[in-house]
Amino acid sequence: MRTWKTVAEEKRKQIGESIPAKWRVKDITAAMLKDGYTNTKEYIDSLLSRQELAITNMTATELSQRIAGGELSSWDVCYAFCHRAALAHQILNCCVEIFFDQALQRAKELDDYLSTHGTTVGSLHGVPISLKDQVNLPGIDTTIGYVGYVGQEVKTKSLLAQVLEDKGAVFYVKTAVPMAMMAPETQSNLLGTTLNSINIAFSSGGSSGGEGALIGAHGSILGVGTDIGGSIRIPASFQGLYGLRPSHGRIPYMGIANSYKGQEVIPSVIGPLATSLEDIVLFTKSVIESNTWERDPKVVPIPWRDTSYLKHQTLRFAVMWWDGSIMVHPPISRALQMVVRAVEKGSHEVIDWNFEHHADVLDLATETFSADHGQEIKDICALSGEPVADCVKSLVDYNPMERPISVEKWWKIGERKSELREKFLSYWAHTSTKTTDGKPIDALICPVWPTAGFKKNDGKCIALNYTTPFNVIDCASVVFPVTTVDKNIDKVDNEYIPVSELDKKLKNYYDPNEFDKMPVCVQIVCPKFEEEKVLEISSIIKDLLA
Amino acid sequence: MRTWKTVAEEKRKQIGESIPAKWRVKDITAAMLKDGYTNTKEYIDSLLSRQELAITNMTATELSQRIAGGELSSWDVCYAFCHRAALAHQILNCCVEIFFDQALQRAKELDDYLSTHGTTVGSLHGVPISLKDQVNLPGIDTTIGYVGYVGQEVKTKSLLAQVLEDKGAVFYVKTAVPMAMMAPETQSNLLGTTLNSINIAFSSGGSSGGEGALIGAHGSILGVGTDIGGSIRIPASFQGLYGLRPSHGRIPYMGIANSYKGQEVIPSVIGPLATSLEDIVLFTKSVIESNTWERDPKVVPIPWRDTSYLKHQTLRFAVMWWDGSIMVHPPISRALQMVVRAVEKGSHEVIDWNFEHHADVLDLATETFSADHGQEIKDICALSGEPVADCVKSLVDYNPMERPISVEKWWKIGERKSELREKFLSYWAHTSTKTTDGKPIDALICPVWPTAGFKKNDGKCIALNYTTPFNVIDCASVVFPVTTVDKNIDKVDNEYIPVSELDKKLKNYYDPNEFDKMPVCVQIVCPKFEEEKVLEISSIIKDLLA
Repeated sequence: MRTWKTVAEEKRKQIGESIPAKWRVKDITAAMLKDGYTNTKEYIDSLLSRQELAITNMTATELSQRIAGGELSSWDVCYAFCHRAALAHQILNCCVEIFFDQALQRAKELDDYLSTHGTTVGSLHGVPISLKDQVNLPGIDTTIGYVGYVGQEVKTKSLLAQVLEDKGAVFYVKTAVPMAMMAPETQSNLLGTTLNSINIAFSSGGSSGGEGALIGAHGSILGVGTDIGGSIRIPASFQGLYGLRPSHGRIPYMGIANSYKGQEVIPSVIGPLATSLEDIVLFTKSVIESNTWERDPKVVPIPWRDTSYLKHQTLRFAVMWWDGSIMVHPPISRALQMVVRAVEKGSHEVIDWNFEHHADVLDLATETFSADHGQEIKDICALSGEPVADCVKSLVDYNPMERPISVEKWWKIGERKSELREKFLSYWAHTSTKTTDGKPIDALICPVWPTAGFKKNDGKCIALNYTTPFNVIDCASVVFPVTTVDKNIDKVDNEYIPVSELDKKLKNYYDPNEFDKMPVCVQIVCPKFEEEKVLEISSIIKDLLA
Repeated sequence: MRTWKTVAEEKRKQIGESIPAKWRVKDITAAMLKDGYTNTKEYIDSLLSRQELAITNMTATELSQRIAGGELSSWDVCYAFCHRAALAHQILNCCVEIFFDQALQRAKELDDYLSTHGTTVGSLHGVPISLKDQVNLPGIDTTIGYVGYVGQEVKTKSLLAQVLEDKGAVFYVKTAVPMAMMAPETQSNLLGTTLNSINIAFSSGGSSGGEGALIGAHGSILGVGTDIGGSIRIPASFQGLYGLRPSHGRIPYMGIANSYKGQEVIPSVIGPLATSLEDIVLFTKSVIESNTWERDPKVVPIPWRDTSYLKHQTLRFAVMWWDGSIMVHPPISRALQMVVRAVEKGSHEVIDWNFEHHADVLDLATETFSADHGQEIKDICALSGEPVADCVKSLVDYNPMERPISVEKWWKIGERKSELREKFLSYWAHTSTKTTDGKPIDALICPVWPTAGFKKNDGKCIALNYTTPFNVIDCASVVFPVTTVDKNIDKVDNEYIPVSELDKKLKNYYDPNEFDKMPVCVQIVCPKFEEEKVLEISSIIKDLLA
């Protein structure tokens, strides 16, 4: 009899076999550790040919230019990323679908097109893009972390995939997600756990953890994630990457597989993770310029707007050092200080942020995500007989005897959400009373996560305090790398007195030796639909930090 | 003991007493009928002074220009509309709050401002605007058709009211709504029934029926309504007015009282009704140019866009003659023919519209609006002990033994809605295969209501087939007057064989003598957020019809 375990084993075997034999490395992790590496990016750098190394360390922007200019072929680029992704997966367990042949065939077609027409098909001509396993591609499974979805035929292509392909993108892998995509780590009965590419003792983060791990190892340099409570920003942060959480309605979600599809109070959004900010811009601009509002009714017809004028302005920022509930670890504080100092050095103003409804916003998210008391997860698990994965147990066990709430209660949640968004916007506008020139702030500087990651399968130290609020409020938000943990600088703060049990647990979780060298990202937040502005400001800050 | 009846009686008495004694007319309806009038607009025209008559027959655009130019004072304009509204209310029962003193005081302040500063406060300087009784003004009741809400203190002002006031608008009345605003007629235990200003034997329509009646009688020329299933378009149509159902997120709804506040699957929207298209544009442009997205998180930052280039283009239209379920009455068919003929004469193209999911869209709306099985209505009725009003009984009795549905079922409704919107947009795009130049249609021409109104308290002949679908899909839609019923032309169609019981009932409801002279409007529909385009196209059609 085919049990869920058999199905999962077969799937993992099939993933392994989809890697060409020449790229399979027996006991690769042991070899890596033996060679003294815990950082997968660095280890793979040591394994590749010079050309592969050069290609996989460029940005998508550079690659697309070199391909367009005839310096590189799409095929060579694709080949290098396939090789690198194959190695990364064998260490990190980050891919759930591998289709290199299809990708190389597509790359060849793009090369032929370019040589025949003398022009590219679009801004992403030959750029390999990895896709979180929610993006549908016909003929390829979309399992979103469930054994029960293995082998269910996918017939239609997600609109975003179509748009990226129309611009010339090459797809070659789909990446791992936790069951239901409702966890900040990446673990499922189907695939197991995805590891952190900077330090394999750590979690990749989640739910776009496959993307985070793969991109962190440069098995991809530009990928598509989704974010309902931090799922783009958390893995981006844990791997020291750039990530954009776009506002709902800016990037098309049509035809993307998802949990709780009709749940519209806090919708999941889709956006890019990348090794560079310029690639985040390349992706976002390319997609927005595709006018997808003509096809996806949820996309708002706001064209891409030029924000370069911001470079010549004095800007106003607020900084949230912490939220009053969960103190951030010393390296996170230091990263915030670095950003604030850089910004002030650039003659911009920084005031403090004290939005008093932060805890209400978080509570509302918890209520929203557990409104069906795990019913959908249980139902889909029942398809295969698999147990609920550890990483989403808290959602199912939130109140296990409860049935899904009534629509009346749901409407109250929706109403409270709207009120909180109004309060947020009002608070934002009200910052004008605190700035020197009487204008409201341009952006908020804040942590992404209270720590620089957590150990693999270590769900006890989870606090969504700095990501989920911006899903509830629906802000445009960018995360970017600022520094790495330095055990010699980032000492334990013995003076801080925790304000809650979780806060205490988090405090005690910090060990400078364990966290040493882990990347630290900071988050920049703008109000809804200000994607261009938050990207421009991130670029300004990046330059000031350099 | 104060029963709900006492409270309602006192409220009606108070409304009556808020009309200055000099404007109270005893047995006005009897006098009107005795003078041979059934049309309130025409009757009031016969009662007013020459100046009042002139003022109340101008558009808001003209009035604002004359006030700005010093030809008219805000006070004179306000006075004329107060007088006219007072008369209209006594015949039609269309106002639920009357505050002329406040209005005249405000008008005086505006006159003072203009004479002091030599400039207006904004584009609506001195323009009287009537407000549906969902708009909150501090110190004035917002009862939304419930006795239980009488005397509940209103403390904050709706954002839209603030924005209109900032532009110079003068508020003087709030207008009647049916209980919960969930009916296409206007009836409540609080106020009774609102009559049609074109023929007092007919219903004003609803739920913005107070607006429709008042504006139809020129007791206002520009007012604010809301629309969740046709509530702006139905009363506009029944009174031969212009109305815009804006897309959700274009005009601020923040701080507006409403039923089912957290119900986000088919949200209510707010927009203008007016005696002219130019005033609909004036209103919409003025509001959009107020950048309310900085204050209302539900408003999308799409600035007002110029669409005058459309005037010089060949346009493509589709026409929906009927939806296959409910045949329209002969005058409605004739109005559609008039529009199609005019458009074709203008060298534009017209193809047929056959969206096959029309019935699914309607079913979805019914499920959405009855998802709580009337629980909220029952709960609010319980505040005062009043019974459920006749006009919303069907919502409460939809399945009276049922409790509100679960959030799981609600999410399925939300998911189906999104699928239907995708299908609609896809069908729209697909019209490119039917047009001569291979471009999709610019707008859809369709009925507003299968009949030219219905008799007062005659809820048996209700079919939302031509309004509610565009709430489910969330389109920008304009209704405008095309013709009036002519008993000599619009004969009963004896050949049509009804396709259902309701269709048969509707067919039999048509009596050319009864409907004679009733106005007939047609609806123009564009996709979401195309307010500027649907208004421009309506203007083009209006010119072609002239």
